[in-house]
Amino acid sequence: MTDTPQPLGPPQRILMGPGPSDTHPQVLSALGASTVGHLDPYFLKIMNEVQSMLRQVFQTKNELTLAVSGTGSAGMETCVVNLIEPGDKMIVCVNGVFGGRMADVAERAGAEVVKLERPFGEVFSSAEIEAAVKEHSPKVLGIVHAETSTGALQPLEEISRIVHANGGLILVDCVTSLGGLPVKVDEWQLDAVYSGTQKCLSCPPGLAPVTFSPRAVEAIDKRTRKVQSWYLDLTMVRNYWSDSSRAYHHTAPINMNYGLHEALRLVLVEGLENRFARHRRNHEALKAGLAALGIRYAVADEVALPMLNAAQIPDGVDDAAVRSQLLNEFGIEIGAGLGPMKGKTWRIGLMGEASTPRNVLLFLAALENCLATQGLELTPGAGVAAAGAYYRG
Amino acid sequence: MTDTPQPLGPPQRILMGPGPSDTHPQVLSALGASTVGHLDPYFLKIMNEVQSMLRQVFQTKNELTLAVSGTGSAGMETCVVNLIEPGDKMIVCVNGVFGGRMADVAERAGAEVVKLERPFGEVFSSAEIEAAVKEHSPKVLGIVHAETSTGALQPLEEISRIVHANGGLILVDCVTSLGGLPVKVDEWQLDAVYSGTQKCLSCPPGLAPVTFSPRAVEAIDKRTRKVQSWYLDLTMVRNYWSDSSRAYHHTAPINMNYGLHEALRLVLVEGLENRFARHRRNHEALKAGLAALGIRYAVADEVALPMLNAAQIPDGVDDAAVRSQLLNEFGIEIGAGLGPMKGKTWRIGLMGEASTPRNVLLFLAALENCLATQGLELTPGAGVAAAGAYYRG
Repeated sequence: MTDTPQPLGPPQRILMGPGPSDTHPQVLSALGASTVGHLDPYFLKIMNEVQSMLRQVFQTKNELTLAVSGTGSAGMETCVVNLIEPGDKMIVCVNGVFGGRMADVAERAGAEVVKLERPFGEVFSSAEIEAAVKEHSPKVLGIVHAETSTGALQPLEEISRIVHANGGLILVDCVTSLGGLPVKVDEWQLDAVYSGTQKCLSCPPGLAPVTFSPRAVEAIDKRTRKVQSWYLDLTMVRNYWSDSSRAYHHTAPINMNYGLHEALRLVLVEGLENRFARHRRNHEALKAGLAALGIRYAVADEVALPMLNAAQIPDGVDDAAVRSQLLNEFGIEIGAGLGPMKGKTWRIGLMGEASTPRNVLLFLAALENCLATQGLELTPGAGVAAAGAYYRG
Repeated sequence: MTDTPQPLGPPQRILMGPGPSDTHPQVLSALGASTVGHLDPYFLKIMNEVQSMLRQVFQTKNELTLAVSGTGSAGMETCVVNLIEPGDKMIVCVNGVFGGRMADVAERAGAEVVKLERPFGEVFSSAEIEAAVKEHSPKVLGIVHAETSTGALQPLEEISRIVHANGGLILVDCVTSLGGLPVKVDEWQLDAVYSGTQKCLSCPPGLAPVTFSPRAVEAIDKRTRKVQSWYLDLTMVRNYWSDSSRAYHHTAPINMNYGLHEALRLVLVEGLENRFARHRRNHEALKAGLAALGIRYAVADEVALPMLNAAQIPDGVDDAAVRSQLLNEFGIEIGAGLGPMKGKTWRIGLMGEASTPRNVLLFLAALENCLATQGLELTPGAGVAAAGAYYRG
């Protein structure tokens, strides 16, 4: 009578793309724990603990720290629409897909957007930011910490000082960096920061951790118009996430918050510094292995992200064929290039649970196999040997 | 060094509030299935199947049918911001909290909102809708099918004809009705419909099923301005959910879609008509039991929802004390009243998996116990006896 599909049975992938990353079995188990009500005392305790753990991971004391009920892009939109009122000036730094997205979001919120652009893969200098900030005096400057589309890392501390010296607020995309490299919200004085759960936190996608400085909260409190999005309006959402009011706003994604709770716990049990060092080490090993296969990075060494390796596809190699072979023969997912890097780069993620020596060696061995299929002549075993040598020190 | 909470261990609740409802173990298991990439061929197949099953549950052939990556309120906002451009006229029918919310969302989207109001618990007559539509000629009329805040059911078919005769579109909140009573999108010619996963579909909260008629899609295609929300912009989201393009927009909540897939499968395996009959039967049994305890409904019999029973709290009974005792002593969650019904009603859900004779009998027995604690003099066992008699026919 009805056309009813078969029950689920997902393949076992190794997720080495730009996210989602591999999920720890304990996180999967937490996702499947018994649902309770969204105002159940137990769930309120979980919310408190998620907030407390997010503060530790963001390295902040910001009270307004919570998980938005949407994916990373909803976190981006939350930051923008709460800080921006129509006519406000916002500088958006665009050196990849996600900076471009932020500019689009800001225009839709009615901001007068000034785009500061760099080619994909490059980062912004303090000098050019300072010149733009002095010229335009924006209410908000938006910038991406770790560009998932290019694999480039943007230093933030000096830029934050520049923006504040000019009376502005700094809004930062930490989707890919959080949990994989330092995001020091208080020390760097970042005002509005958003992330996603499916990168270095290794929780499936579905929530967006955000944190707002007292300066940002003051800007929100001074608004003269309602936030254009009801769903993302922090003036209401914060009352649900506040232990003193718990005013109903929307029904939080209970089980997704369970998953994030366990993912954050695992991050803290490992320790932030250990986790950052692990990401760095596996990145270096992968880089050594790729170099031995004659593959170079699309970004300069000094700005290359440890968790997202944008590698140049060798001449004559069929991008899609290699990615398909990796997926179908070895169950390994890597990402395609985005925007102008489409067809020119692979995006190899070593995020969270997926950042392991095991994955590095396996990936290099599998890639060598795929490149040989493509007719490339390589020294057999060169990639895994170089990575192994790096690990042995 | 760090302040790390204990692992999860949620209590086993029976969820008889206004949602979330009880989750089937197979849905919990699906939530915890291995994460794959958001562009993995396997996940694309799951998306196709979710769409196909949603069409069956919505009783529609609408191509633009998908699960928005947010909760029911994000579904509401998706419908409004995609259909409304600044200055468009929208009538919003307000007879409960969710109609009021829709008016707020529409105002934030720049609509010229005309609120048509009825007291909480009542529904709108075709005549008053017709008069308002003729007077205001709205682009969109928004109305709630099943008001979760009051337990009232709004007939839609005649209203839809009236709105269309006047050249408008009808936007409907089916958060609480979908999966529990008929939602005939095509037969009733509804144009934009949203729901949530945590009511009669019995999946945890986190996604919002939506469907749009060809008329609504035409209105979206004719827009002169971008949708104000990037995250909820269907002109992009639909390309990700389209099997022919699969253009990356945002990273879908993979595991939440697994859960919805299994929840929809269970709905279809049971069969829509069987499911509606089950909701009706358990509602009637509960009503008989409550009547035997001297408890009346806050809405008239002919408009009372089967899945959300708004019961008047007997005089002299402490609302919060009874709900606490139900939760702490028996693990049963029911909901408090909202808005003007706060403190005056309980909202007793019999949604999806929670709509069972077992829960009806248990709840009546537990409630009798709590009312006795409050000092009410009742005929012992009257509630369960009346419900049992109803079941025995």
